[in-house]
Amino acid sequence: MLKEIAATKPSAKPVPLEHAEVGHKRGLPADHLEDDLVPDFAHAADMADHLENLSLDKQVCALRKMAVEAAADALAELDEAVAVDVLENLDDAAAARIIAEMAPDDAADVLDDLDEEHRDALLKRLNWEESEELRHLLNFDPGSAAGVMNTGVILLESFFTVDEAIAHMRGEMAEMENPYYGYVVDSRDVLVGVLSVRDLMLGRSGTVVGDAVGGQSVISVRYDASRRDAASLLSRYNFLSLPVVDYEGHIMGLVTYDDIMDIMDEVASADMLGMVGADPEESVDTPWLESVRGRLPWLMINLVNSALSASVVYMFEGTIAQMAVLAVLMPMVANQAGNTGQQALAVMIRQFAIDRFDHRKAWFAVLREAKIGMVTGLFMAGAAFLGAWAFTRNLQVGGVMAGALLCDMMLGAVAGGSIPLIFRALGRDPAHASSIFLTAITDGAGFFIFLGLATVVIF
Amino acid sequence: MLKEIAATKPSAKPVPLEHAEVGHKRGLPADHLEDDLVPDFAHAADMADHLENLSLDKQVCALRKMAVEAAADALAELDEAVAVDVLENLDDAAAARIIAEMAPDDAADVLDDLDEEHRDALLKRLNWEESEELRHLLNFDPGSAAGVMNTGVILLESFFTVDEAIAHMRGEMAEMENPYYGYVVDSRDVLVGVLSVRDLMLGRSGTVVGDAVGGQSVISVRYDASRRDAASLLSRYNFLSLPVVDYEGHIMGLVTYDDIMDIMDEVASADMLGMVGADPEESVDTPWLESVRGRLPWLMINLVNSALSASVVYMFEGTIAQMAVLAVLMPMVANQAGNTGQQALAVMIRQFAIDRFDHRKAWFAVLREAKIGMVTGLFMAGAAFLGAWAFTRNLQVGGVMAGALLCDMMLGAVAGGSIPLIFRALGRDPAHASSIFLTAITDGAGFFIFLGLATVVIF
Repeated sequence: MLKEIAATKPSAKPVPLEHAEVGHKRGLPADHLEDDLVPDFAHAADMADHLENLSLDKQVCALRKMAVEAAADALAELDEAVAVDVLENLDDAAAARIIAEMAPDDAADVLDDLDEEHRDALLKRLNWEESEELRHLLNFDPGSAAGVMNTGVILLESFFTVDEAIAHMRGEMAEMENPYYGYVVDSRDVLVGVLSVRDLMLGRSGTVVGDAVGGQSVISVRYDASRRDAASLLSRYNFLSLPVVDYEGHIMGLVTYDDIMDIMDEVASADMLGMVGADPEESVDTPWLESVRGRLPWLMINLVNSALSASVVYMFEGTIAQMAVLAVLMPMVANQAGNTGQQALAVMIRQFAIDRFDHRKAWFAVLREAKIGMVTGLFMAGAAFLGAWAFTRNLQVGGVMAGALLCDMMLGAVAGGSIPLIFRALGRDPAHASSIFLTAITDGAGFFIFLGLATVVIF
Repeated sequence: MLKEIAATKPSAKPVPLEHAEVGHKRGLPADHLEDDLVPDFAHAADMADHLENLSLDKQVCALRKMAVEAAADALAELDEAVAVDVLENLDDAAAARIIAEMAPDDAADVLDDLDEEHRDALLKRLNWEESEELRHLLNFDPGSAAGVMNTGVILLESFFTVDEAIAHMRGEMAEMENPYYGYVVDSRDVLVGVLSVRDLMLGRSGTVVGDAVGGQSVISVRYDASRRDAASLLSRYNFLSLPVVDYEGHIMGLVTYDDIMDIMDEVASADMLGMVGADPEESVDTPWLESVRGRLPWLMINLVNSALSASVVYMFEGTIAQMAVLAVLMPMVANQAGNTGQQALAVMIRQFAIDRFDHRKAWFAVLREAKIGMVTGLFMAGAAFLGAWAFTRNLQVGGVMAGALLCDMMLGAVAGGSIPLIFRALGRDPAHASSIFLTAITDGAGFFIFLGLATVVIF
């Protein structure tokens, strides 16, 4: 059970802390609570959930009623498809005011999905500095590290003392997504180190920061790396933010921990959805006709694949006509091998998601799957032999069933283990449509081995 | 391309900042670099990777050679199965020294997997305070919020001024996993608010913290909530840490952002692996015989399921004997509907992972899948009709194929969408073995509809 959020109460006097970072809002006067469209939520994520349950008209109306800061926070938390719909239906002036208030990286994400005309109209309404920054961010591939970075960075000159650095950070931190790291640059603006507020608060006050970071190796990500790589570096090292640098080592921005959780969620979704040939970015909020368009090509490929498997069965049509019970048992072999392969596939794809996974370890993992496939295959072959024999009272059918099941399960395990590696070697996403190709292999081979063995052994 | 970590260089003089939080180690003298077993890594995660590639003997030897702090950091980053192996092979004295140095939540995780005798032996070697804390943590279910919490919390009395609070945090922050949040408690030790270092640094110095947090609604998680719930709350609100409280609202510890990324990875793996009936905690590092044990029961269930589908085919053995081409086309129907269902399943399971997903929205999502199933089904039915007719030159066979495909694909879409909801309503994990039950439905129904239609239409 999650603790319920207690109702907020109005505080007696104006509160002195202006930047409540931890996501709590001060209590509002009680009459605000009576507004159905804009209820009093403690956090923008809750407001976004509320908005997502409203009709588009009401969403637009609610955003107009909200304070512009609250509207900007809520928009950043909305599902991107919803956010784009809302922006398109707001008048340009109101939309631009909200965009101006959003963090630049969030604003760029939303603008990126607007049509060009509308985007330009909104950008023209911003002041020069804001629109230049957004145009700069919009230049980068949304799938790259630069595509998710914030441009707000606290820079520390290497000649600052610890006291000067603390004072400087205090002056800059109000608007930063990660207010707790200062990045140290040298005279050529190259990133040479990083110090946290903790490092500084616990450091000796006269120390020069350039000395303090001497010998540091800064972990950073190049702007054209994938955002997936940025996310896995950040999660590997547990930093609050990771600097994004250009080829000369100049700092361009930061990828922050709050973006990373979203990226990791997306990566996990992409793997799971991609595996079965759905659009990696699909969710229950995707318009259904868009999903149809995304899934149809893979269903078509699946149909062709299964036609190939069917053609294997067709080769043995005569055998089946003579002994129809083979058609009864045949799908069991394919199904079981398919499931074995999917288990191997899921293990490998997750490993890719978590780890960088070197070649040696990868093929070792395939060997591991082969062993698992062999042993589980032996068990299942035993069970299938007994079942098929009891059912048909025919030892030969039992033997064929057992032999085919063992072979196809081992093949499924090896195929499930190697498909992601082969896809990667071909420069493809290791997960994408892997399950569809796996099923083609286990079905085709299963039918061939089973019916081929039957033809040889029984007739 | 990730930027390579530059080789660390020894700094000329002793460095003054002792708590380098951002994960960089000072340069060491060059002769340290020559030790193959204990190379000079900038971060514990890199050291852990290095260790995971060594044999057990060498792992143990390397950990003995390392400074105890470095060994503790590396052990916390190791895969849990590897960490347990290493601890079991270290002498108790060395193991206890490393355990004492680890963060209590990491230490408890590792100790939890040791056998009881060994665990007690290690706990006896710690000082009273340390061992009591670990025993306390070991009492909690590792799957609960309390099972992943840190007990290090910076507490602020509500009568502190902002200046006092900053001074207090400065004194406490050295050892904290999240040094940037102070949790405000009242005279009965009940959690009443939270202030970040930023809030404090930007606040007015004379303000009393109790007033500053007046009217705050603190978002917290009860100790017996699942760690998955804790992770999703933390990622939803983008906090650095989430307080874990008891039923009276007393703070017991914190779940921190660095744990959350691991939990989210585990959740994603659990969904993907669970869906196909592998152990949710399996990885390529799981001993293979353990994987065999974990997967066999589900393969057995899958065999029984596919025997049920086979019994449907058996009902129509006579039909197949008369017209063996039906056995050729039959698996195509089941395969295609299975793929359609898997796409629906993957979308729903991911939605569960990211969202809390209310009932209304959930059944709306099933409706969405039904519509997608219908339209993609119509397309595929058209393609299948043409294919089957061209292949058999029999309009009736084409019609049966098309009709069965459309019905089974719609059924697959609805089944894939609803299985996770039904599992949840039954109190089960929505993902676990869902794919296995889905295939049983699409296979069984596909065979029945196709062969049944054929029997009625053709004969």
